[in-house]
Amino acid sequence: MIHHSCGLFAVYGHPDASRLTYFGLYAQQHRGQESAGIVSLDEKGHCHLHKALGLVPDVFSEEHLQKLAGPIALGHVRYSTTGRPSVANAQPLLIHYKDKNIAIAHNGNLVNALELRRELENDGAIFMATSDTEVIMHVFVRELAKQPDLVEAVKATCQRLKGAYCLLFLIDDTLIAVRDPFGFHPLSLGRLDGAPVIASETCAFDLMDAEYEHCFKPGEVYVISPEGEMSCMLSDHLPEKPRQCIFELVYFARPDSYVFGEQVYQCRKQMGWQLAHESTPDVDFIMPFPDSGVYPAVGFAQSAEIPYEHAMIRNHYVGRTFIQPSQSMRSFGVRVKINPVRAMIDGKRICIVDDSIVRGTTMITRVRKLRELGAKEVHIRISCPPVKFPCYYGIDFAEPKELVACGKTIEQIRQKLDVDSLHYLSKEGLLRSVMHEDHYCTACFDGDYPVPPCSLAGKFGLES
Amino acid sequence: MIHHSCGLFAVYGHPDASRLTYFGLYAQQHRGQESAGIVSLDEKGHCHLHKALGLVPDVFSEEHLQKLAGPIALGHVRYSTTGRPSVANAQPLLIHYKDKNIAIAHNGNLVNALELRRELENDGAIFMATSDTEVIMHVFVRELAKQPDLVEAVKATCQRLKGAYCLLFLIDDTLIAVRDPFGFHPLSLGRLDGAPVIASETCAFDLMDAEYEHCFKPGEVYVISPEGEMSCMLSDHLPEKPRQCIFELVYFARPDSYVFGEQVYQCRKQMGWQLAHESTPDVDFIMPFPDSGVYPAVGFAQSAEIPYEHAMIRNHYVGRTFIQPSQSMRSFGVRVKINPVRAMIDGKRICIVDDSIVRGTTMITRVRKLRELGAKEVHIRISCPPVKFPCYYGIDFAEPKELVACGKTIEQIRQKLDVDSLHYLSKEGLLRSVMHEDHYCTACFDGDYPVPPCSLAGKFGLES
Amino acid sequence: MIHHSCGLFAVYGHPDASRLTYFGLYAQQHRGQESAGIVSLDEKGHCHLHKALGLVPDVFSEEHLQKLAGPIALGHVRYSTTGRPSVANAQPLLIHYKDKNIAIAHNGNLVNALELRRELENDGAIFMATSDTEVIMHVFVRELAKQPDLVEAVKATCQRLKGAYCLLFLIDDTLIAVRDPFGFHPLSLGRLDGAPVIASETCAFDLMDAEYEHCFKPGEVYVISPEGEMSCMLSDHLPEKPRQCIFELVYFARPDSYVFGEQVYQCRKQMGWQLAHESTPDVDFIMPFPDSGVYPAVGFAQSAEIPYEHAMIRNHYVGRTFIQPSQSMRSFGVRVKINPVRAMIDGKRICIVDDSIVRGTTMITRVRKLRELGAKEVHIRISCPPVKFPCYYGIDFAEPKELVACGKTIEQIRQKLDVDSLHYLSKEGLLRSVMHEDHYCTACFDGDYPVPPCSLAGKFGLES
Amino acid sequence: MIHHSCGLFAVYGHPDASRLTYFGLYAQQHRGQESAGIVSLDEKGHCHLHKALGLVPDVFSEEHLQKLAGPIALGHVRYSTTGRPSVANAQPLLIHYKDKNIAIAHNGNLVNALELRRELENDGAIFMATSDTEVIMHVFVRELAKQPDLVEAVKATCQRLKGAYCLLFLIDDTLIAVRDPFGFHPLSLGRLDGAPVIASETCAFDLMDAEYEHCFKPGEVYVISPEGEMSCMLSDHLPEKPRQCIFELVYFARPDSYVFGEQVYQCRKQMGWQLAHESTPDVDFIMPFPDSGVYPAVGFAQSAEIPYEHAMIRNHYVGRTFIQPSQSMRSFGVRVKINPVRAMIDGKRICIVDDSIVRGTTMITRVRKLRELGAKEVHIRISCPPVKFPCYYGIDFAEPKELVACGKTIEQIRQKLDVDSLHYLSKEGLLRSVMHEDHYCTACFDGDYPVPPCSLAGKFGLES
Repeated sequence: MIHHSCGLFAVYGHPDASRLTYFGLYAQQHRGQESAGIVSLDEKGHCHLHKALGLVPDVFSEEHLQKLAGPIALGHVRYSTTGRPSVANAQPLLIHYKDKNIAIAHNGNLVNALELRRELENDGAIFMATSDTEVIMHVFVRELAKQPDLVEAVKATCQRLKGAYCLLFLIDDTLIAVRDPFGFHPLSLGRLDGAPVIASETCAFDLMDAEYEHCFKPGEVYVISPEGEMSCMLSDHLPEKPRQCIFELVYFARPDSYVFGEQVYQCRKQMGWQLAHESTPDVDFIMPFPDSGVYPAVGFAQSAEIPYEHAMIRNHYVGRTFIQPSQSMRSFGVRVKINPVRAMIDGKRICIVDDSIVRGTTMITRVRKLRELGAKEVHIRISCPPVKFPCYYGIDFAEPKELVACGKTIEQIRQKLDVDSLHYLSKEGLLRSVMHEDHYCTACFDGDYPVPPCSLAGKFGLES
Repeated sequence: MIHHSCGLFAVYGHPDASRLTYFGLYAQQHRGQESAGIVSLDEKGHCHLHKALGLVPDVFSEEHLQKLAGPIALGHVRYSTTGRPSVANAQPLLIHYKDKNIAIAHNGNLVNALELRRELENDGAIFMATSDTEVIMHVFVRELAKQPDLVEAVKATCQRLKGAYCLLFLIDDTLIAVRDPFGFHPLSLGRLDGAPVIASETCAFDLMDAEYEHCFKPGEVYVISPEGEMSCMLSDHLPEKPRQCIFELVYFARPDSYVFGEQVYQCRKQMGWQLAHESTPDVDFIMPFPDSGVYPAVGFAQSAEIPYEHAMIRNHYVGRTFIQPSQSMRSFGVRVKINPVRAMIDGKRICIVDDSIVRGTTMITRVRKLRELGAKEVHIRISCPPVKFPCYYGIDFAEPKELVACGKTIEQIRQKLDVDSLHYLSKEGLLRSVMHEDHYCTACFDGDYPVPPCSLAGKFGLES
Repeated sequence: MIHHSCGLFAVYGHPDASRLTYFGLYAQQHRGQESAGIVSLDEKGHCHLHKALGLVPDVFSEEHLQKLAGPIALGHVRYSTTGRPSVANAQPLLIHYKDKNIAIAHNGNLVNALELRRELENDGAIFMATSDTEVIMHVFVRELAKQPDLVEAVKATCQRLKGAYCLLFLIDDTLIAVRDPFGFHPLSLGRLDGAPVIASETCAFDLMDAEYEHCFKPGEVYVISPEGEMSCMLSDHLPEKPRQCIFELVYFARPDSYVFGEQVYQCRKQMGWQLAHESTPDVDFIMPFPDSGVYPAVGFAQSAEIPYEHAMIRNHYVGRTFIQPSQSMRSFGVRVKINPVRAMIDGKRICIVDDSIVRGTTMITRVRKLRELGAKEVHIRISCPPVKFPCYYGIDFAEPKELVACGKTIEQIRQKLDVDSLHYLSKEGLLRSVMHEDHYCTACFDGDYPVPPCSLAGKFGLES
Repeated sequence: MIHHSCGLFAVYGHPDASRLTYFGLYAQQHRGQESAGIVSLDEKGHCHLHKALGLVPDVFSEEHLQKLAGPIALGHVRYSTTGRPSVANAQPLLIHYKDKNIAIAHNGNLVNALELRRELENDGAIFMATSDTEVIMHVFVRELAKQPDLVEAVKATCQRLKGAYCLLFLIDDTLIAVRDPFGFHPLSLGRLDGAPVIASETCAFDLMDAEYEHCFKPGEVYVISPEGEMSCMLSDHLPEKPRQCIFELVYFARPDSYVFGEQVYQCRKQMGWQLAHESTPDVDFIMPFPDSGVYPAVGFAQSAEIPYEHAMIRNHYVGRTFIQPSQSMRSFGVRVKINPVRAMIDGKRICIVDDSIVRGTTMITRVRKLRELGAKEVHIRISCPPVKFPCYYGIDFAEPKELVACGKTIEQIRQKLDVDSLHYLSKEGLLRSVMHEDHYCTACFDGDYPVPPCSLAGKFGLES
């Protein structure tokens, strides 16, 4: 699995704020399954917070939503990229500082978090947990102590942050959304019954019939307060080109979302189309694995004019806890989730289109199974280049040496997977599949990092 | 929803019998989600039973499987077609009669259950619950009292049963499987490490890498005991042609299964293929709804040479309990499960291929949503004829008057659904999609009932 | 532990029937912690049943009570004296026989259950489980088939039953309560807002402010129907003297109950009083163990004019599941439940008054602990004679050879317990503590069985 | 209910440290039922923390204890005296500061917490929650930044704290225990297999067979590190006399504990003895209510030479969740927990001895019930003076105006309770019941506050 760090949602000035946030997080559950949290602000100026480890429907009960009263709410789903799952790291982070309630939710990863933390500790700050968000909170409170203007304090805070961040601040009744200057991760504005709503992905808007307005610009600061809404930029000196995370389009985002203003389904179909242009094998049919690679496979099949089949069936009840299988059940781990339709496989030449190969173990097992069932040829086409470099901006690939592509030629990978042919979509082909091809970060493919990783490598020692 | 009554599984002479049965039921969970149960027989001749309301993974814990010791096991998953869900009706049914342990599991529906029950009550029998299975058990025990031969007792029992039944009997260490003379429901034999395994659908065999041997014949009695395995027929006067339930192929069975010796995925693709031959609209693309109609849609698109798209996205986390939505969330019930990809819909002419329309309410909502999102035309193609008659053999369609097709012409249904065109696959087209076109019951389409329904209509009064 | 078999409760003609039954069972939870069940009858003549393994508050939810509609309800709590805990054996037992709903709840133990079962099986009856109650149900249904009169059928049924039984029958809207001719177990009549209520112990009446009327007579049949209430006797030839279970007074019943018309607290104090008369040691104080022996200890201390102390403290939170202790925690099993107050023990001569010693293991550990803490002398006084014979009427002592008193003289027991003196209350002293000293069964002390145990020893082989 | 704030436990250098802490907290569960937490330190210097809302057995699973590895552990149970229950306020509080792991657990209440918090916020500190403990942590970290010596930093921290505090600090592998200069709350040292153990009450030692050594002195600092153990005092200028909380002896502590070096059971018996000397009514018997007042009642009865009875019976199964009673059940709330033995009450003159009357509502209901059951006279004796003043040091009495004794004479209270006579133990009598009568705080009885409450009244506004 490849893990993303987070999903954000906020709504300002709606009587059902926390309930909408619940569903906004639910729609973005794929962006973080470790913990979920909501902060709300009620009419009396009291903040309410509930967060816990678990999936959104497990974390919140009707009773919780009742307590999360008020017309402003802010929510977060998280997958940890550092340390153990811990409720101490769950977001949003809420503090009380000199009669102000301040909540922050963060999607992304700072490269200078450890440096900042050391500075802050030297200045007397103490840390309860290990998240970047707590670091950002300390920086923000210090900036706020210097100047009362909230927007200036946010800008000054962001001046000190290096790396990837979409941030939502709630300072009493002012909500501020920020995207970092390179715009690594997506954040969009919508509107529901006149109230502004903010989400990492627009599928959250669809669920509640909110209207999608636009994606915030890289470096944009968007302020919503009782005085109204206004937008400004973090600074006058922003990078010339955004460097948005192309893996959001390849893999993370829901296909029905817009992210970075791009429609994900269409991008993925286009990747399949490009892939077919680059390398179409002579096969009987194209197939995806269930729940992965469906959209590039559809595009590939259309472009190559080869039949498209669902020759592997997903078990609808997977997801529940299981009893351990007996030893008689060989390759059980694969079978309980998906089952190939033997009659479709036997004697066939098959091309699998998928969106990624990480460690390769699942792919190897599945290919072996197809061969056992009589597949004459198995070809693989992947809708992005091989991942060869770590991401420092919030995506948790496996350790480099665990990646199947690490240090291997395509031919070596093909042999390891034991397939008849293997082709990865070229970086050029990938970028041709999106609208703004020069607006993307491709560091995981080519090592070209827009923000250099910090010298202070390593993670915090605190386990909590 | 259309509900089936049951799924069966058994294994004889394997050290992991109850664990295999657990997985055999798990693979057949789609055949019954109301209750699940397993009986096992250990080496000392003791029977063990656990059954409860719920899904297979919720009903059984590791501790339960440990207690279900022994090399012979028999399992059942159930969806009730009568009365309220009740653990008293859960199967298998286990009794102790004169030092014999007798367990029965049943898939199907008798048309003369109420008649038999009245006869038995007049003879002093008392009933704990409302299932046909308890009736069959009483008949069997009375036949067994007349003659010691187990197979003869089974045959004599079945002489008295009218309707649809696949039965598994475990009488001490003898396992007997029976299909009714018309073979309404499927039951297949497989083998794992030399041990015979029996399942309603062969997807249960695939999960444990058991080898599929063949489907039992209609009217076949298959006996497995310490003396070995043998097959005979219920009588010398069986119907000339089987009347197998074609709805198993259209809708119920998992696409990766064989039932009645037919491969389900291929039958469904063939239905789509036939459907395209009968009526192909001029559209931009073909789409299924997520998790329904995928296979006929694939066949339709291939035959019609029209692009195939997944323009509605399923939410992967659906299935968990939800908090009620706020009133702001219009048509929420649809949206939380699936979300259309707006960019794919807008301005497009769309043909939806599906496997059934029952009440039509979901279809109407989804079509309306597609139109809201800008679909220029919406056409519907259904891979079977309209269901117009009730089933007395174990399939629970809605009440006739609730069926959208009830008493309406196709044109009237089309208007009700508000689509540009509507076509149902003809009965002839449907039968051309399977191998043995004269072996099927089509009573739900044409009212031609192989076994006349009983005059004693109505259900039992006992609620428990 | 010594286990009782059951507690019964019923209410007839009250709008809150099932809720009252819930609390009536809750108050009698000490009579059976294995399973609980309620049957109700609503105004339309429909029966509703819910039963499950577990304590009353765990078995029933508000939703269950809502479904258990109607003004008549019948409930049961059970501790199994045979076989493994099983929901199949939970009571009440409800069946449907020729348009009649028949429910039975039973407290006691038949000595001829196995004989009856064999007869019934020869007559075609089949058994789902192993309880006596199912046997009684079959007998009753057969009698009912012979004659339509319910009371005559009940009498004819009881003619065939040997042993101990308090029975509640609900046949459609007729409720019939029966005590066996010897009156082994208690059953009392009360009244709430004019509606008759029936309970094994009167503490159930107190909880709902029902008025206690009287204990049913041994051999009494009490009939409540829409026509009114009437009483008759099982036969004209009842035993001259009842043989009620004196262990109900010594140990089982709650001290605030009346059973057999005797007030339990006062009987127990009287046992302590008699015990002091028989043997008072020269000690510094008298103490009970927490939650056992308190009442005879109070009586003993008053009679002997020796101070009474609670020198062992019960942990209020015991009952919840624990994590295993570490090996450092010696004699943990004792300590987690109760803890001696060291300062009260050191240098003292102590007399413990308790109501029973079964296996003796707990007593040995506790005595050893008292000695470790410096007790100078430890004396034990038990408020009944040594249990030396098995009970066939519904009380589950340990196996004879596990009883500390089995085959030992008092002196040998004293040595085994390592105490300075030991005295058991004499049978005469025990009988002097109750009002009707010749109305009790003392078979567990003297082997004088009012109903001879059946020759067909052993339990059923069916495990379910 | 009167609520205490907390219970502490620690063990240093034992292989089962976290498991012992689990049981140490379990034994002290009565001191805090809202949340529980444990921090451990393993051999590699990593800290592990688990805390949650709930009772000890619910908060910790075997898996949690496995993760709480290492030979040093620190635990806390809490009842909140401020704000809503919140896991953010659960203790111990663990932070990471400049490569140091620092954990603090606190029992008591500071009177200058809000003042300190404002100071700290002005200095840039941010607060996650509302507990005093977080304030103490910030003060400590600031002191530690000034000087590296841990003990000096602890002393300097305590110089700034006003009010009641027992503190446990774990700074990496150094454990420091502190009692405030007045010694408001208890903290004792014990030893198990050579390892030091620390607990609020010695009943925690008994559970694990640890040896009780002594109670720490007011103002004592006890340091345990790899270098060994040493003791010093917070300052040279400590108060002349301790002012320990006498309510610990009257009400909170378990009777089998030693606190402040006093044996609780014996103190309570002595209070009953003194109470009988002050005012013995002419009654038939003395009775406590179940689980409250037992020990003074025993002392009272012995002194007055009047019989002692348990005329109210506690329901053993209380504690589990209930379904709401029906309206037929009058005074149900009382009855479900305890039930008076009618036969003991009718026509009797009764003296109830109890340890406190707070709001009086329960007492009024119970007295009324006794009169309904025929009690001829009801007298009440309370084993401490009336509570008239709020506690600022960690005990949560109800609001003053809710206290039955607030602004009323004894005669007025007697009338309100509707009893024949009422007497509270005098302050002098209470102090005569303990060993060191001039070492106690009696502010709740007489308003004589050893530490003046802070002018900054009110609680924090942050709700979380």
